[in-house]
Amino acid sequence: MNGWNGKILDIDLATQTHKSYPLDMEMAKQFIGGRGLGARLLWDLVGPEVEPLAPENVLIFTNGPLTATGYQTSNRFSVTTKSPLTGTVLDANSGGFWGMQFKKTGYDVLIVRGKAVSPIWIEIKNSEVTFHDASDLWGMRVYAVTEKLGQDNNRRNVLCIGPAGENLSRIAAIMNDRERAMARGGPGAVMGSKNLKAIVVEGSGRPEIDDKERFKFLLYETRKLLAASPLTSQALPEFGTVVLMNIMNNIGALPTRNHQETQFEGAEDISGETLTEKYLVKNASCWACPIGCTRISKTEKVEGEGPEFETTWAFGAQCGINDLAAIIEVNSLCNDLGLDTISAGSTIACAMEMSEKGYIDSDLRFGRADLLAGCVEDIAYRRDLGADMAEGSLRMATKFGHPELSMTAKGMEMPAYDPRGLQGQGLLYATSNRGGCHMRGNMIGLEVLGLPKLIDRFVVQGKSSFVILNQNSNAAIDSLVICKFTNMGVADEYFARVLGAVTGIQYATGELIKTGERVWNLERLYNLREGFTNKEDTLPDRLLTEAPLTGPSKGWVSHLEPMLKEYYRSRGWDEYGVPTPNKLAALGLANL
Amino acid sequence: MNGWNGKILDIDLATQTHKSYPLDMEMAKQFIGGRGLGARLLWDLVGPEVEPLAPENVLIFTNGPLTATGYQTSNRFSVTTKSPLTGTVLDANSGGFWGMQFKKTGYDVLIVRGKAVSPIWIEIKNSEVTFHDASDLWGMRVYAVTEKLGQDNNRRNVLCIGPAGENLSRIAAIMNDRERAMARGGPGAVMGSKNLKAIVVEGSGRPEIDDKERFKFLLYETRKLLAASPLTSQALPEFGTVVLMNIMNNIGALPTRNHQETQFEGAEDISGETLTEKYLVKNASCWACPIGCTRISKTEKVEGEGPEFETTWAFGAQCGINDLAAIIEVNSLCNDLGLDTISAGSTIACAMEMSEKGYIDSDLRFGRADLLAGCVEDIAYRRDLGADMAEGSLRMATKFGHPELSMTAKGMEMPAYDPRGLQGQGLLYATSNRGGCHMRGNMIGLEVLGLPKLIDRFVVQGKSSFVILNQNSNAAIDSLVICKFTNMGVADEYFARVLGAVTGIQYATGELIKTGERVWNLERLYNLREGFTNKEDTLPDRLLTEAPLTGPSKGWVSHLEPMLKEYYRSRGWDEYGVPTPNKLAALGLANL
Repeated sequence: MNGWNGKILDIDLATQTHKSYPLDMEMAKQFIGGRGLGARLLWDLVGPEVEPLAPENVLIFTNGPLTATGYQTSNRFSVTTKSPLTGTVLDANSGGFWGMQFKKTGYDVLIVRGKAVSPIWIEIKNSEVTFHDASDLWGMRVYAVTEKLGQDNNRRNVLCIGPAGENLSRIAAIMNDRERAMARGGPGAVMGSKNLKAIVVEGSGRPEIDDKERFKFLLYETRKLLAASPLTSQALPEFGTVVLMNIMNNIGALPTRNHQETQFEGAEDISGETLTEKYLVKNASCWACPIGCTRISKTEKVEGEGPEFETTWAFGAQCGINDLAAIIEVNSLCNDLGLDTISAGSTIACAMEMSEKGYIDSDLRFGRADLLAGCVEDIAYRRDLGADMAEGSLRMATKFGHPELSMTAKGMEMPAYDPRGLQGQGLLYATSNRGGCHMRGNMIGLEVLGLPKLIDRFVVQGKSSFVILNQNSNAAIDSLVICKFTNMGVADEYFARVLGAVTGIQYATGELIKTGERVWNLERLYNLREGFTNKEDTLPDRLLTEAPLTGPSKGWVSHLEPMLKEYYRSRGWDEYGVPTPNKLAALGLANL
Repeated sequence: MNGWNGKILDIDLATQTHKSYPLDMEMAKQFIGGRGLGARLLWDLVGPEVEPLAPENVLIFTNGPLTATGYQTSNRFSVTTKSPLTGTVLDANSGGFWGMQFKKTGYDVLIVRGKAVSPIWIEIKNSEVTFHDASDLWGMRVYAVTEKLGQDNNRRNVLCIGPAGENLSRIAAIMNDRERAMARGGPGAVMGSKNLKAIVVEGSGRPEIDDKERFKFLLYETRKLLAASPLTSQALPEFGTVVLMNIMNNIGALPTRNHQETQFEGAEDISGETLTEKYLVKNASCWACPIGCTRISKTEKVEGEGPEFETTWAFGAQCGINDLAAIIEVNSLCNDLGLDTISAGSTIACAMEMSEKGYIDSDLRFGRADLLAGCVEDIAYRRDLGADMAEGSLRMATKFGHPELSMTAKGMEMPAYDPRGLQGQGLLYATSNRGGCHMRGNMIGLEVLGLPKLIDRFVVQGKSSFVILNQNSNAAIDSLVICKFTNMGVADEYFARVLGAVTGIQYATGELIKTGERVWNLERLYNLREGFTNKEDTLPDRLLTEAPLTGPSKGWVSHLEPMLKEYYRSRGWDEYGVPTPNKLAALGLANL
């Protein structure tokens, strides 16, 4: 069958052996690839008895049937594991070039199990797998490792962890292509726990396309659609994702100083417009991407990729800091250390509030841009308070007696969109399977930008339908795997046509979205098996009880409870948030 | 202020006088133009004491701030009146060229009151108004009147009624540009009741644009967006709206033989593909429209515009007829007689079922294409059974003792989308302010095409949110006035930017959609004042109790009740469907 390579590479680090076997094609059809396929494999491989940082946890790298075909943004790949930060199912994905190279090796899936006795790195050249000693790389930062393993512009194929992952920080990322992160939920710590420093891939295969003429036509149409959309043709290439800073601030939904406020007086200083004016060198793209939202920024000290909006928010508004140069620099440092910028920034913000209130004895204060760099170094090396911050804000705040100051859902730091000003976004955070995350569903299009339609951001009744639609759609796109930004110009159903042209399988209307729903329910089942209940579908008390005193969201808290009730019903789950047998049967999940 | 001319032309037919006065600009800002402004004016002008066919009813023709600016599809205009078919508020709109000419006369609104003692027609040349004797035109059909009043390709400016309107058929249309109809709800009868045969407009004014550079840029972007969307750049120009025939049939949502079934064995014969292959001469466009969905079709007997999908369905599947040539010909005949094709076709279908069952004594039977032409002639001239059919299917079926066989909502014949296979569409019909109509909200994008997202067409829970969003969006677009097809490629919020560029007023995010909500609620208030209650928010029993026995919608009825409950709540209305004081205050409708 075209689209998939049909092969799994399975590596055991303990024995430094590997085997290859066929991908179950029925499973592939049901879960496509990427996040969906990863979740399905994790269901079989890692049960509730396994600690996330134990050797029995696995890393599952997946691409999808579109990967490397040349379809717009067909560069992404996914890693699935049990999260050391949240204990939930976790997948994180990334763009760049690694995923495309990985697909060309001839595999759809790479499973990494066990723990190496001493640091190693893996080289995969088509079907050839080599284990290398990584003693000399251990302790090295990301940029240095990437260079040392020979990544250059023609060969952007190094995936690795930095010191944060080695030191098992629960907010450590897996990096690839130097500055691209599979950031959230701590997958870097899982890699570190396995003594695995890096994976280098190189492939020369070429994915077969079932209907080349049709595919070419769809490629042409997609190019037109992306070129016509103001967001994908102008806003993102010109200002990057940071274009959202002024927008979120203007509507009073920009969490500020650890979510104490919803507007930041320094927003303009750290906006996309300011970034473009003062620090932008040029924009750049992932492989096969015509959008080009990547920023190449330069300050007196650093030049490199980023920062994204959420990063700029985390170290900016959330920490009360309006020094954009300092943010660009700490972003670069996080990439070099292998840290999730959202969790790092928001954990620092939490520590700032706790220090201001005297719960923690430290110099941290809101606005102290001068302390940022030292802080993230401390996290990566677990120095002083950094040892606590490396555990994420919830464990840190709990240790110091004030868990309520951790701005997390299921233990994951929520990004730059305040649920008090965006009711649907709050429901998303509370129900997201990997915790407080804007990439498992995102209501900014619907609640803010009016893309494709504008719905009232304060309305509660009826909101769950939109959230569910969005979550299912995102799960489908994450399983293809392509970039969610394409969805701003191209409708979901269009992707089903592309998938059909590539694989030769006819995807009926609705099947792709149903696949997304299947993935979402499977992830839910995984978390339930881990012991999660509806009690964990919640938000920090601050968002449920403390309304902003000023700004456009003044007087609003998150009205989570009624939305959640409606959400369970609309999902076809029972009142405890458990999928009903009927729902599972309808999704083909009855006999897992 | 740019965008609006700022002037109302007010004509009293009884005295053959006219006056001009300023448009209330606060009202214009609140209701924009077209349907919104029309509804607001009707609220003041026509109370519940007025019978639809009494001289005290009015015709309110409106354009909008975008009309004639050259923005894509800025050709449409609207007529508002109390409906002789449903007794509700009614607006009907049309494309073509008349609306553009009307805007260029320097007026935003034309109010026509009273009743002329004998037939007249009105000529409006910029600010000059002339009343002409129409004795020689009375009784004449539409094509002949149009020609006689001098319409040619450079001067497409004749609006008139045919015999159906003269004879007060409650399903009579107002025609313009020869073959374009303001069709639904019987506005042609209101015009006939006033002894008004035609209105010819000619204007030489030019709408001023506030920010020309910005407008030009938005025009350029819109062109790109429409050219990129597969629907507006390929499906509609190539196959017209009839492209939906096979789609609706395949999913089992094509009402067949007066809604007795939901699939038609002859669908392929009357599909867009067959039309294009066998009868299409070329496609054509309204003024300033880059899409060109209009069909120019030709049979041995006629050549002209159409047929649209709903027309083809009404005389086709609904009547059990698969003879496309006969449908093209009866469509042309309806245009010439000035009849609403949907109501005419569905009323004939109702008569066919009643005849088959022996409730009516006539030769009518499903499949009798040979009787169609005679039937619509009978309706227009109120001959024999035609006199009853001219009243619409509900009054006819009621007279013969079987109102349950009328496939109407609030007395208006529902078009070509079966609520049993499209749950949201059923809720739309039941709640539509002008009765069973697909142009006051349409769920085909969401429930069938996946535009912009696909939602499950059978799901009931949570459906109301999407329906409301769609209704509000449609009300806003009808108030601009532009063509709803643009919305397939261009997001609602984008239109707010266009409106801002034209008028110089900044429309904040969400204001345009809120205007749509305001219009929707005002229309609801109008109907409540007329004595309508939540009891009328319903569907024919057949759709609520008789499930199709075969096809993809097998076993499904419309689950209206739970959707309706949810709908009222989501609308901010009480359980009886009455807008709450809070909701009205939020919409600025508290002090009507």
